[in-house]
Amino acid sequence: MNNSAPTATPEFLAALIQIVGEQRVRSDPADCWPYGYDNSRRHALPEWVVFALTHEEVRDLVRLCNKARVPIVPRGRGTGTTGATVPISGGLVLSLERMNRIRMLDPTNRAMVVEPGVTNQEVQIAAGQQGFFWPPDPTSAAFCTLGGNLAYNSAGPRAVKYGTPRENVLALRAVTGAGEEFRCGTYTTKGVVGYDLTRLLIGSEGTLAIITEATLRLTPLPEAKRTLRAAYKDTESAGQAVADLMSQPLTPCALELMDRQAVTLVQAQGGIELPPGTGALLMIEVDGPATAMEDAVTQLKKAAHNAGLLEIVAARTPQESKQLWAARKALSPALRTLAPKKINEDVVVPVSHLPALISGLERLAKEFAITIVNFGHAGNGNLHVNLLTDPDEPTERERTKKCLEQVFKLVLSLKGSLSGEHGVGLEKRDFVAQELDPAALNLMERLKAQFDPQGILNPQKTLPLKTST
Amino acid sequence: MNNSAPTATPEFLAALIQIVGEQRVRSDPADCWPYGYDNSRRHALPEWVVFALTHEEVRDLVRLCNKARVPIVPRGRGTGTTGATVPISGGLVLSLERMNRIRMLDPTNRAMVVEPGVTNQEVQIAAGQQGFFWPPDPTSAAFCTLGGNLAYNSAGPRAVKYGTPRENVLALRAVTGAGEEFRCGTYTTKGVVGYDLTRLLIGSEGTLAIITEATLRLTPLPEAKRTLRAAYKDTESAGQAVADLMSQPLTPCALELMDRQAVTLVQAQGGIELPPGTGALLMIEVDGPATAMEDAVTQLKKAAHNAGLLEIVAARTPQESKQLWAARKALSPALRTLAPKKINEDVVVPVSHLPALISGLERLAKEFAITIVNFGHAGNGNLHVNLLTDPDEPTERERTKKCLEQVFKLVLSLKGSLSGEHGVGLEKRDFVAQELDPAALNLMERLKAQFDPQGILNPQKTLPLKTST
Repeated sequence: MNNSAPTATPEFLAALIQIVGEQRVRSDPADCWPYGYDNSRRHALPEWVVFALTHEEVRDLVRLCNKARVPIVPRGRGTGTTGATVPISGGLVLSLERMNRIRMLDPTNRAMVVEPGVTNQEVQIAAGQQGFFWPPDPTSAAFCTLGGNLAYNSAGPRAVKYGTPRENVLALRAVTGAGEEFRCGTYTTKGVVGYDLTRLLIGSEGTLAIITEATLRLTPLPEAKRTLRAAYKDTESAGQAVADLMSQPLTPCALELMDRQAVTLVQAQGGIELPPGTGALLMIEVDGPATAMEDAVTQLKKAAHNAGLLEIVAARTPQESKQLWAARKALSPALRTLAPKKINEDVVVPVSHLPALISGLERLAKEFAITIVNFGHAGNGNLHVNLLTDPDEPTERERTKKCLEQVFKLVLSLKGSLSGEHGVGLEKRDFVAQELDPAALNLMERLKAQFDPQGILNPQKTLPLKTST
Repeated sequence: MNNSAPTATPEFLAALIQIVGEQRVRSDPADCWPYGYDNSRRHALPEWVVFALTHEEVRDLVRLCNKARVPIVPRGRGTGTTGATVPISGGLVLSLERMNRIRMLDPTNRAMVVEPGVTNQEVQIAAGQQGFFWPPDPTSAAFCTLGGNLAYNSAGPRAVKYGTPRENVLALRAVTGAGEEFRCGTYTTKGVVGYDLTRLLIGSEGTLAIITEATLRLTPLPEAKRTLRAAYKDTESAGQAVADLMSQPLTPCALELMDRQAVTLVQAQGGIELPPGTGALLMIEVDGPATAMEDAVTQLKKAAHNAGLLEIVAARTPQESKQLWAARKALSPALRTLAPKKINEDVVVPVSHLPALISGLERLAKEFAITIVNFGHAGNGNLHVNLLTDPDEPTERERTKKCLEQVFKLVLSLKGSLSGEHGVGLEKRDFVAQELDPAALNLMERLKAQFDPQGILNPQKTLPLKTST
């Protein structure tokens, strides 16, 4: 991998301008500054920012960078939380936000062809007009780009029923780090000719190739949806309900959990009525044919019932549904107010280990004297673990670091994974070797070298640094 | 790639025996003979057949073969149709049929850990006892192994709603061609740490690594299922109905098509009552909550209705459902009787192009004077194209070959793929370069070299032969 800082020669700048024109190149540090960060609070100044409009421009830019050994960091709207788009090796930030066309919408084949800069919301709106949706729905859907969704395999609440991008993409067009352009996948929902490069690129965080076009697999919009909110006396009971809900035939289209700390936090803000003694909350949604909803609600109520259930309510109108979601929606602002520099982790464990994860986290919270607030996509075992700490405070930094190490250790001991949907980037890069099989990691490094022989694509991200470099 | 025939030295045989014991090694040609073919009617004699029982044995056998540069062909029960397990380079056939343990069944986490030699049916039975199933359901389910299902990404009718193995596997354990052992994937339904090696191995036909364990993602059994049969005057009408069925919210759990030739064939056998003038038949199944079935049937009947519909009937009992399926079930035996050496292709096109595919095939049937019978998984656009010919007849061989070339050309012109679920193996190896992007193919070859540097894993399969070797 080439980590040496490139030289910002006038020739290189001229070559960039030759590819995309002067209007779409930035080299003034003040102009480049906003393209140096993402939602991880990390920042590094790129030497150049270029806005590409076409596949051919991306190809030519990568070829130029490969020749000059200049790092190139593909970037959507910078909503990622792991530093994956922060250009820590300098070089070029390739902004794809203007490559935002919807090239084709094909309801008969349940397919949609888009450029990487289109936002998730734009995809949903266009698909929705034809009666479809694209299942991945990260919280940042209004701003985040499709390219980013694919880079991190971003999911969201609906993944419990409808899967992640890996289950909802048919084909890709991309450019490798050596500037090779290729298409992979099929325009069909089945296909077994050649190796599956499509899924290999999804989740690779721009380290293998830059995606310039994606064929999305669409799902018809369900006719109806119902929302339930279940209050439990403790996390164990809620965790048991999650397990029971996931082993009966009716898979919810959302199954979200808030732990005791999260419940306490939103109740302290007022305006949310919950039964006294509520120690955990589940939000359950089900979708399907309108005529099936009444029975579905009955069935889910039954599955959610156990000795620890305090109350379960089902919304009858969209307005009531909104009221039920109020507790969950109030949580993130409350957390940000309380601890603006909080650390939001994104771990995942098998559903049956959720109670063990949460009780383990409660133990760590006490041990390290850090308030930990947990909520997330319980149906996938995907928990957002929020450490209410200020990592910029010298007194808290070391403690937070040690606590996080223990969180990761706990997750791995429960057969979990360090990231469910946020990805690795820089934040978890130095931990992934604890999770990945050493031989698999070695294979990944060798595959990376085939896609990006000079290591110019998003250097120093996603895979651990090699000790030799 | 090393294609030179290995030397059957006594030392190598002794080394094999040292790993698995004398009882599980065959070297007598008469004993090896039955392990030289699959369901493609191809045959090549292996030099040795070994039955492995454990991951460690597989690892040691691969290491031995890698050192001695002996080809190694992993094999389940030999039900594949493409010659992928036929040992055309000689060497060792590694039979995994005795590695057939179900290691864990975990309903709470909707997961099941199995060895590669377990049959699909054994998986379904074990999962069914806990209220679950594993979606892929190839016709050979009673005999075919899980390892084979993963090697070919085998699907079946349920894929239209529930996906293929790529959407239904969480994790793998495997051994590369260099004898490296590794685990990949997660025990959770979400995860984005490291590159997706799991999907890369699925569909790679034993050319990248030998799978020794798989963690399957299970789905709860639906409460109820209903079957409909719709008769149309022609394929165009049936094709339009498929497109309409696939663009409304209620996805069928099976959507099978029989074309005019197929209908004629089963009607000639008698015992199947269809409306006069039936030119195409759809079998439609829907599953879900019992209380939703009545409305679901109404909705599907509505979506299936168009000017070409002659009759649509819904079964009310399992017995009636069986009667409706009778036409479809009678087809394969009828085809085998009529043309025992028929060629069964497995192409796939976007659903909207099914009518164009079938009318194109009718044109080719006339042009080459070959009866072509089409049926298959219409909801995925996956058609089994049966050429009723005898490729062993010198007069028919050349004509069949030319016709097949035109079939493939037609499929690719319709944005399709040469294989939906049977795979490539030897049968389609020389055609895949027509489908795959040259740069993608080149990447695949480079990835193969990382997994299998000496080319000992299932040589000369799946990817085109390199002109240099």
